[in-house]
Amino acid sequence: MDQYSSKLLNNAVEQFSILPGVGKRTALRLVLHLLKLDKDEVGDFAEAITELKNNINYCELCYNISDKTICSICNNPKRNSALICVVEDIRDVIAIENTSQFTGLYHVLGGVISPIDGIGPQDLNIDPLIERLSEGEIKEVIMALGSTMEGDTTNFYLYKKVKDLPLNVSTIARGMAIGDQIEYTDEITLGKSIRNRIPYEQTLKG
Amino acid sequence: MDQYSSKLLNNAVEQFSILPGVGKRTALRLVLHLLKLDKDEVGDFAEAITELKNNINYCELCYNISDKTICSICNNPKRNSALICVVEDIRDVIAIENTSQFTGLYHVLGGVISPIDGIGPQDLNIDPLIERLSEGEIKEVIMALGSTMEGDTTNFYLYKKVKDLPLNVSTIARGMAIGDQIEYTDEITLGKSIRNRIPYEQTLKG
Repeated sequence: MDQYSSKLLNNAVEQFSILPGVGKRTALRLVLHLLKLDKDEVGDFAEAITELKNNINYCELCYNISDKTICSICNNPKRNSALICVVEDIRDVIAIENTSQFTGLYHVLGGVISPIDGIGPQDLNIDPLIERLSEGEIKEVIMALGSTMEGDTTNFYLYKKVKDLPLNVSTIARGMAIGDQIEYTDEITLGKSIRNRIPYEQTLKG
Repeated sequence: MDQYSSKLLNNAVEQFSILPGVGKRTALRLVLHLLKLDKDEVGDFAEAITELKNNINYCELCYNISDKTICSICNNPKRNSALICVVEDIRDVIAIENTSQFTGLYHVLGGVISPIDGIGPQDLNIDPLIERLSEGEIKEVIMALGSTMEGDTTNFYLYKKVKDLPLNVSTIARGMAIGDQIEYTDEITLGKSIRNRIPYEQTLKG
């Protein structure tokens, strides 16, 4: 495995290769870039990673990534605590926050039910979600999972669990993406877009 | 700049974003992948980087990356020390080594002459190269720089410096890549391929 003339280089390249989407070639490019930086800069880089891993917390309420025990979203009194958006991953929280369209709180499942990957409900943060919803303060839960078989399975599982609670359950709208052409939209999406059509006046509100 | 709910996450993403070709989105994906690993694995990752930066050497002879003062290529008695291949970068050494077609030694310039980037001959390992070549043990120097204006400029500069020394100076062949079609080869390359044609018998030797 000693591909390069230096064991240290070999080792660093091996380590970078564990990252998703990073092959040996890219790993070498990244490592050689780091080598060109100052010692302090490389130190900062390595420290940021270990600091993150050693000191990171997950919010006790919503399982979002956080520096404290309760994250800044759950802790924000301006947010609507009667509205919960259920997402798969921390990245989904970031994506939805970037839209500035959601003022409620989140619940991060940490994945979706996927029998093929051996992920069942017990591997996800589903029990704490049911507990949160059972407390009675939450009026609506929006299920914002990926539009995949696993996402749909998880949606159905959650729906069965909460359908007897006094709250509204919704999923985010699926349909043609903004900017898409009808002729290039796949049949299933187009079919759903037609079945789930909305009153035109509603679209005028932005 | 606090894009995420965690300062530690923000910081780690910022650090990954300094890498070439890594935007904020990719940086986040890489960082979240690291977060899923064990503490030990993340520790190994960070250590490999700092170890590399703190302990790396460049070979005193050829400026290749090395764990010792003389690299494993220069130190290998089986290699032909009368033949030197001049390259821009450490990556070029790796690329040529991977061909298994070269048995001589290297000299890494650390770049090419590029007035537009403010890189002159004095910024490169050219003086040590001239010194090596002047010692009289080297019989041939192969210039293996990129086929760019900067590469050509550097080739010409080096040629002028060494042309009075008793050694052969060559450049690697330029022409159609193996597997290319005539009709898709650019005119300049095709023209050079025709002017620099080689006896057919020579190609039979592999």
